[in-house]
Amino acid sequence: MNTTGKMFKVTSFGSSHGKALGAIVDGCPANLELSEEDIQKELNKRRPGTSQLTTSRKESDKIEILSGIFEGKTDGTPIAGVVYNTNQKSKDYTSIKDTPRPGHGDFCWMEKYGTYDYRGGGRGSARTTIAHVIGGAIAKKLLATQGIKIISHVVQIGDIMAHSTEVDTLEENISKNSVKCGDLEAAEAMEELILKKKAEGDSVGGIVETIAIGVPAGLGDPIFGKLDGELAKALMEINAVKGVEIGFGFDVSLASASEINDEFYYNEDKEILTKTNSSGGILGGISNGMPIVSRIAVKPTPSISKLQETINLKTEENTTIEIKGRHDPCICPRITAVSESATAILLADHMIRSGFIHPNNLKLNLE
Amino acid sequence: MNTTGKMFKVTSFGSSHGKALGAIVDGCPANLELSEEDIQKELNKRRPGTSQLTTSRKESDKIEILSGIFEGKTDGTPIAGVVYNTNQKSKDYTSIKDTPRPGHGDFCWMEKYGTYDYRGGGRGSARTTIAHVIGGAIAKKLLATQGIKIISHVVQIGDIMAHSTEVDTLEENISKNSVKCGDLEAAEAMEELILKKKAEGDSVGGIVETIAIGVPAGLGDPIFGKLDGELAKALMEINAVKGVEIGFGFDVSLASASEINDEFYYNEDKEILTKTNSSGGILGGISNGMPIVSRIAVKPTPSISKLQETINLKTEENTTIEIKGRHDPCICPRITAVSESATAILLADHMIRSGFIHPNNLKLNLE
Amino acid sequence: MNTTGKMFKVTSFGSSHGKALGAIVDGCPANLELSEEDIQKELNKRRPGTSQLTTSRKESDKIEILSGIFEGKTDGTPIAGVVYNTNQKSKDYTSIKDTPRPGHGDFCWMEKYGTYDYRGGGRGSARTTIAHVIGGAIAKKLLATQGIKIISHVVQIGDIMAHSTEVDTLEENISKNSVKCGDLEAAEAMEELILKKKAEGDSVGGIVETIAIGVPAGLGDPIFGKLDGELAKALMEINAVKGVEIGFGFDVSLASASEINDEFYYNEDKEILTKTNSSGGILGGISNGMPIVSRIAVKPTPSISKLQETINLKTEENTTIEIKGRHDPCICPRITAVSESATAILLADHMIRSGFIHPNNLKLNLE
Amino acid sequence: MNTTGKMFKVTSFGSSHGKALGAIVDGCPANLELSEEDIQKELNKRRPGTSQLTTSRKESDKIEILSGIFEGKTDGTPIAGVVYNTNQKSKDYTSIKDTPRPGHGDFCWMEKYGTYDYRGGGRGSARTTIAHVIGGAIAKKLLATQGIKIISHVVQIGDIMAHSTEVDTLEENISKNSVKCGDLEAAEAMEELILKKKAEGDSVGGIVETIAIGVPAGLGDPIFGKLDGELAKALMEINAVKGVEIGFGFDVSLASASEINDEFYYNEDKEILTKTNSSGGILGGISNGMPIVSRIAVKPTPSISKLQETINLKTEENTTIEIKGRHDPCICPRITAVSESATAILLADHMIRSGFIHPNNLKLNLE
Repeated sequence: MNTTGKMFKVTSFGSSHGKALGAIVDGCPANLELSEEDIQKELNKRRPGTSQLTTSRKESDKIEILSGIFEGKTDGTPIAGVVYNTNQKSKDYTSIKDTPRPGHGDFCWMEKYGTYDYRGGGRGSARTTIAHVIGGAIAKKLLATQGIKIISHVVQIGDIMAHSTEVDTLEENISKNSVKCGDLEAAEAMEELILKKKAEGDSVGGIVETIAIGVPAGLGDPIFGKLDGELAKALMEINAVKGVEIGFGFDVSLASASEINDEFYYNEDKEILTKTNSSGGILGGISNGMPIVSRIAVKPTPSISKLQETINLKTEENTTIEIKGRHDPCICPRITAVSESATAILLADHMIRSGFIHPNNLKLNLE
Repeated sequence: MNTTGKMFKVTSFGSSHGKALGAIVDGCPANLELSEEDIQKELNKRRPGTSQLTTSRKESDKIEILSGIFEGKTDGTPIAGVVYNTNQKSKDYTSIKDTPRPGHGDFCWMEKYGTYDYRGGGRGSARTTIAHVIGGAIAKKLLATQGIKIISHVVQIGDIMAHSTEVDTLEENISKNSVKCGDLEAAEAMEELILKKKAEGDSVGGIVETIAIGVPAGLGDPIFGKLDGELAKALMEINAVKGVEIGFGFDVSLASASEINDEFYYNEDKEILTKTNSSGGILGGISNGMPIVSRIAVKPTPSISKLQETINLKTEENTTIEIKGRHDPCICPRITAVSESATAILLADHMIRSGFIHPNNLKLNLE
Repeated sequence: MNTTGKMFKVTSFGSSHGKALGAIVDGCPANLELSEEDIQKELNKRRPGTSQLTTSRKESDKIEILSGIFEGKTDGTPIAGVVYNTNQKSKDYTSIKDTPRPGHGDFCWMEKYGTYDYRGGGRGSARTTIAHVIGGAIAKKLLATQGIKIISHVVQIGDIMAHSTEVDTLEENISKNSVKCGDLEAAEAMEELILKKKAEGDSVGGIVETIAIGVPAGLGDPIFGKLDGELAKALMEINAVKGVEIGFGFDVSLASASEINDEFYYNEDKEILTKTNSSGGILGGISNGMPIVSRIAVKPTPSISKLQETINLKTEENTTIEIKGRHDPCICPRITAVSESATAILLADHMIRSGFIHPNNLKLNLE
Repeated sequence: MNTTGKMFKVTSFGSSHGKALGAIVDGCPANLELSEEDIQKELNKRRPGTSQLTTSRKESDKIEILSGIFEGKTDGTPIAGVVYNTNQKSKDYTSIKDTPRPGHGDFCWMEKYGTYDYRGGGRGSARTTIAHVIGGAIAKKLLATQGIKIISHVVQIGDIMAHSTEVDTLEENISKNSVKCGDLEAAEAMEELILKKKAEGDSVGGIVETIAIGVPAGLGDPIFGKLDGELAKALMEINAVKGVEIGFGFDVSLASASEINDEFYYNEDKEILTKTNSSGGILGGISNGMPIVSRIAVKPTPSISKLQETINLKTEENTTIEIKGRHDPCICPRITAVSESATAILLADHMIRSGFIHPNNLKLNLE
């Protein structure tokens, strides 16, 4: 239930206002150099309070590794990573105890479990994506040994769309703006829109694209473990995501096959490539060696201070709610760290499952 | 790899031009009335050769149940269903042995396994969705005992979009046209477009919507087994699907929270409902009791008779290909049977996983 | 529920008196030469009616492969194998419909599922081990490519114990007697004892040993996927088994560490060996490169013609039963084919899981 | 790899001399009262240093729960429990870095992972059973709500066998002696034998029996998830166990069916019972409602101070080793806490899997 992966497994625990959150990463082969800094660097990317665009909740999100590292390297045993919560303000949330917030899972959790740690959304909070990022940080380091790199960037906020950017300049551009957009002009307009929504006590959605470069052909189990199927799952499971598309995505509905079939060719080095990449690097559920490109539709953060209608589960009467607390007016910038992580975890799993990375001992790969 | 589900499991086997295809359904509780006719009825919906819009390959797709039924009811043991291939024309396919077809998985299978039953696309063929439909037919019967119904319909072909229809008239309308569209006027235009593409030796894509009615609140494991995550996987794994969205889907990127947060209310019977259903019945990864609405982007069938560039894996030279054989100019109409099945399998699994259906003995539910 | 394995998976279906039994083997890498004869040869070892020591039910147990083989080799897709039942005598069994047989699972199945295909024990029958043997035959062929061989033999029937035999002569000796015992003198006494029990309308138990030779060091996931843990499961799941031991087994309770710790040494070729093999080839849940030795305690077949007390579930009164039909007076000889298979399936799974066999393409191993 | 269970899952992490050990328990239904004391009580049973019979390593083994409890009850989210190591003496272990200890997994870990935290046996140490006990403590509380109780006791040490005791007096008797034996006279002799072995720098093995009372009929998936199969796995995975038997166990090999078939009868309350319990509560892989009785063969702790032959992996030469440090001369007394836990985890999993305990919300059971 709280575990993903078959050979490279991440188990998530913890909630927004409990003692701690964290993850157990199981199945990382031995002999990968790994330090707390490697994980901290990635956690810092999703950390709140780093710009005006995010919630003002201040959390250092400091990682502590409890197991799995020996003399600076993984040793093949489970890696337990913990982040203690330090800045919970539980009093902010008592008002919402019996009144489920529209757009949130509160009501669903109550129905499912008959109880619910409502403080800050409990385990329904996007704060649980800390576990994704812990797992993702380790997965990224592992993938890097095989020349695989993963980049997420914001391509749309509301009706503002970014122009496409060369992959080479993407990372640099992203680092230059709080929106994590590769198109610097669009980034400014996006930032403005987000701040406008924030001022209105509202929030706004967007689209985040993720590109995985260097993935070999042959990943993905056909039929019920297709690479695109599992990628869709990994991405849809990120809080606030309502749609996933690969390659040409929903636009395929408008196309003819003659327009979007990616034609194969040998380049001068006798490598097999496709002229276009409508398929987004996956055909028949299996990677074809081209970049894997996905996009997710991210809904506007449902926590808004505007008055909304809802119900009181105790009195069984209709009522209204205004949500206090510190919230992100747009979650897209911070979600990039999570979509990178979800993609990395999945690819690490498939690289092992498909025999590209040795399941136990990374040295057997490198030699 | 070829199994889906945790408590209600479907294992798929077989290929387009092998001896047979089929599925083992494991985890169906005992005491469900089930006959070969129940499955045959659903298989007939996806069967080829039923209209001009589909491939002319004629297959009766006759189901044979080998196990799991005792005295007209399931007995809790695995249900093995087999469909023998009868109308393979293997000679049609020998020309493509070494020249991977653009838009198909041929190349990827070759890379992954180092061999490939290329005849008719082998196990990469959409003919393997027979297994989905066998599993789906059983899942639907099981869900029906709990008042759950699932309907898929075509909402877009190329640039022709259907007007939305009341759920009540949807099924009747779908049965009246070969496109499986609820809007009869649009259906005509869609049919025309498909036949035009067929005449051009080309194909066209579209969008299929699936609605699940009567699903209780509380399905879905938060974090890594979210109902929308697993639904995205189930749907993306259907051949030719390149995008999945739930509820408002990709349009959430354009919206503010105040526009799309579904507000809760008690109706006169003190049932909890939401005024709108932007969430598509799933919040925080858990069903909320409203209809579950998904849409998939279906690419144009990649098998077209137009000349396409590709490679010859044996000579390692660039070449061209014209694909002969019998193909669907648009797969959307037939895919409705598969998206219904994939959704049904998933929901049956979750109904058991969440304690709504007894895992072993259906009588313990009904009494 | 009816599937075993993680990378090399066997799904079992069918019952004693239904239409057919069989297995889907998923995860066998492509490019393994495989024919129906390879499986038939193993099925013949467990087939009934081959000697006086077995049930007189005559079944040819003819295998039909429906999928997964292309041009004489596995192609990486699921291998479906089916055996049709031909010699069911259902009338023999109607008398036991409401009176559970002592020592059988009848009562448990009824309690669990609320229904039960009582004919011949239904799916509780040891006839379901046909699925094990189908999976085992494929696993053995796969393991043979890595120099691994598995032999089961009877070491005890009632109070008659076999003297230990050299592994080299074991196979030849086993082939010479119906009991499948390596000690030819003991075999004669065992056969006599079994026939005596048969004449009395009774049955007798025994012990079967399985040796796996050529297994490399490093198989087994520590803690919850230990090689001995999973081997114990695989063997205990065989019908009639009530105990499993590895290496020195239960005798370790009588020993001191100084007596049974296996001391390591380098031989002249600098290979690492142990002087003794009390551990049975597994230490800390991981194989150490020595032969893996297990023994199972097999109970006397519970179907006996002697009068036994039992209950009538319909009338809810105590009653008696005499079991008619054709039964094995000792199941040990036929179980050797099953224990070999269960061991082979497990080792094939672990060889893939631990990176010794490539998960998709066997050619990548052989080259 | 480090997770067990399907619906009630325990993920284990940590090693003997790392920062911490612990477990994530996933799938415990909401609304179970649970405190750190509940777990501490069980951890204290396996804690070292409580008598002369155990290692002198002093560890308080204090549990800290990081998540999953809300207002004194489980809330359906993963329960993370951590025990920090406080009394590691790493210097004791450097001498064994390159010389694998006979009877230990050192060599196997090295072969598997190419590296190894050799300090105190690392993750191969029985100290990792702390995770079992954390999971077991929670499982026991859950099972107690359904009237199920689990007791382990020592029945043999070396050649000293306990007389059988009534279940009613078992617990009281166990609490009266350090050996955890129900026969107080035998306990004295066992204690003497253990101390004698300790004085000799040697160790001794034994047999531990576990009884589960109150288990309903109907647990266990037939074929590949048999209750006895999974119980054998759970018990064999405990460090030092080399054999597992259920009910009559290995003695079935000596018996005739007429002697050991358990005859059914209705008692005065029309409950179905068996006259004997040779089957140990499991028939055909499914529980029959009688007490579930298992026995495990525990080998003498391999860490002994006597001189042993071994190898030096660095110099590739034969050598000898004398193991220093603090070790248990007999692990049986402390293993009782672990076998109870392993049994409890498995039964909790099956109680949920078979529909006896609601998977999400315990209130739905109690009402």
